Amino acid sequence: MSDTKRLFLTESDVNGLLDMQLALDALDDVFRARSNGEIFTEPRYRLPVGKGSYNFMAATWPKRGLAGHKSYVAGGGGVNFHVMLYGTDGEGLLAVIEAGRMGQVRTGAASGIATKYMARENSKLVGIIGSGYQAETQLEAVCAVRDISEAKVFSRTQENRESFAERMSDRLGISVTAVDSNEAAAEGTDVLVAVTNSVEPVVTGDMVEAGMHINAAGNNSWMKRELDTAAVVKADLVACDDIDQTKSECGELMRAAETGHFSWEAMVRLDRLVAGLRTARYSDDDVTLFESQGVAFEDLAVCARLYELALEQGVGSELPA
Amino acid sequence: MSDTKRLFLTESDVNGLLDMQLALDALDDVFRARSNGEIFTEPRYRLPVGKGSYNFMAATWPKRGLAGHKSYVAGGGGVNFHVMLYGTDGEGLLAVIEAGRMGQVRTGAASGIATKYMARENSKLVGIIGSGYQAETQLEAVCAVRDISEAKVFSRTQENRESFAERMSDRLGISVTAVDSNEAAAEGTDVLVAVTNSVEPVVTGDMVEAGMHINAAGNNSWMKRELDTAAVVKADLVACDDIDQTKSECGELMRAAETGHFSWEAMVRLDRLVAGLRTARYSDDDVTLFESQGVAFEDLAVCARLYELALEQGVGSELPA
Repeated sequence: MSDTKRLFLTESDVNGLLDMQLALDALDDVFRARSNGEIFTEPRYRLPVGKGSYNFMAATWPKRGLAGHKSYVAGGGGVNFHVMLYGTDGEGLLAVIEAGRMGQVRTGAASGIATKYMARENSKLVGIIGSGYQAETQLEAVCAVRDISEAKVFSRTQENRESFAERMSDRLGISVTAVDSNEAAAEGTDVLVAVTNSVEPVVTGDMVEAGMHINAAGNNSWMKRELDTAAVVKADLVACDDIDQTKSECGELMRAAETGHFSWEAMVRLDRLVAGLRTARYSDDDVTLFESQGVAFEDLAVCARLYELALEQGVGSELPA
Repeated sequence: MSDTKRLFLTESDVNGLLDMQLALDALDDVFRARSNGEIFTEPRYRLPVGKGSYNFMAATWPKRGLAGHKSYVAGGGGVNFHVMLYGTDGEGLLAVIEAGRMGQVRTGAASGIATKYMARENSKLVGIIGSGYQAETQLEAVCAVRDISEAKVFSRTQENRESFAERMSDRLGISVTAVDSNEAAAEGTDVLVAVTNSVEPVVTGDMVEAGMHINAAGNNSWMKRELDTAAVVKADLVACDDIDQTKSECGELMRAAETGHFSWEAMVRLDRLVAGLRTARYSDDDVTLFESQGVAFEDLAVCARLYELALEQGVGSELPA
């Protein structure tokens, strides 16, 4: 073993180290690397536990000498995320990282990257459906990649959406307004974000307008869906983070494909767009859709930067030798 | 979160806590539970890294409220095993456990359990092929479940097999002799253990004698094999730890099946034998074969006991809160 420092980073450590720009840079970098064949990733899998599931996803990046995985127990008393980061040139374990906040930020950043490469350059107005755990970083990420002046939010509980609007207006320095329906949140927007755990679609075909970019960033279970099939059909381009994982987790695309309204062959991996190997939109009227499941190499890329930063800043606790 | 203690156990902590009997008890227990449908397990999978692979295996035991996985980087500067143990009733992470020694002992114990339920009751003489990292615990485990009076060992390097013989004679209080060929190690034995990383078979058909029990405990890659097909064919019963994993990792059975000399349908899961749902041998002349790949629920069962014991004895370091 080398003299590598092995760190434990708590949620609080991560919170102090991580900002949206770091996550956006890390994801831009890893998506480019993936388009170049540098990344190996294994779709999430789940095993049953008493009231929920044990979740599991891993990736390696041999060129950088990195491997890592995220594991978490979902259901039955909350969620508890951890990433283990390994160096693969003999260093072994580098870090165990509590990864709740990390996951929030990287999932936001994935939508940010999609928006950067898929949405119209002149996007100004964002609609967001959902105001929960993952919603803040979604809006923050979109605002980081486009010159957004205004946002509208809808979620089912009035108090939640109003509190979200107030909080995010302050934080982002733009006007965020709570509205009272999915339709009102979508109307006239340039970028529409769905970030719900909904079983029934929150984005229907009639809500999809010419030129819109949609990030479907919520649930990752085939039993749920955020878009109906008519909305999927309206998309001129559908991008995903990982094809295998999307085929097993993305309820709206699986239903659209099963019923003959969508072909997996038409789907493109986001990394191709990031690397410029494929054009996302051919006109300002094109509708683009990013289906975000959340993949292991995103965690790996962000956690590798967190580890470096923690070493630089002397943050975190050393694991016992 | 509850007031659950979250521990980090180093190799040294584990070494102080773990003995063969603990591992044998844990495996007997978990194999019984599995026969009862209580265990969910996911076969090992591997992702490429620079010079080796990133390995991954997970299991859950909902009835006990436990989930866990092992991860390790193999190749490129040694191996670095870790198990993460979770409580699934809201406790979240319970422990991060360095799992090199643990893996050695649990792999020995798996062969011990197989020997207990498959070998002849009156087994006295053990042959062991291989004297490396995993060999000691193999012999120790067999001696724990049968009244063994004598053992013979062969491995390619004379110094290694002689040192193994001396060391294990002392430790086990039986006569362990180094011999100078695979054939000599096998001849006349009641229990034969192959624990090598060999690409070419070390146990050939002509070495298999009536009444023998064989533990094939070495490599877990389809590119390698410890038995030739003639040896596989001589087995009246073949047991494995996990069917899916055996079908993708067990070189000797995969070759025998592919060439029409073995049917997967004939293979039985060890847990069925442990639970008494199936008879291992119908006569003292039957040849029995246990193919050990090493599965995640074995790690889970042993690590759950290590965690309990560590709490009781105040061993290990608390992870930062």
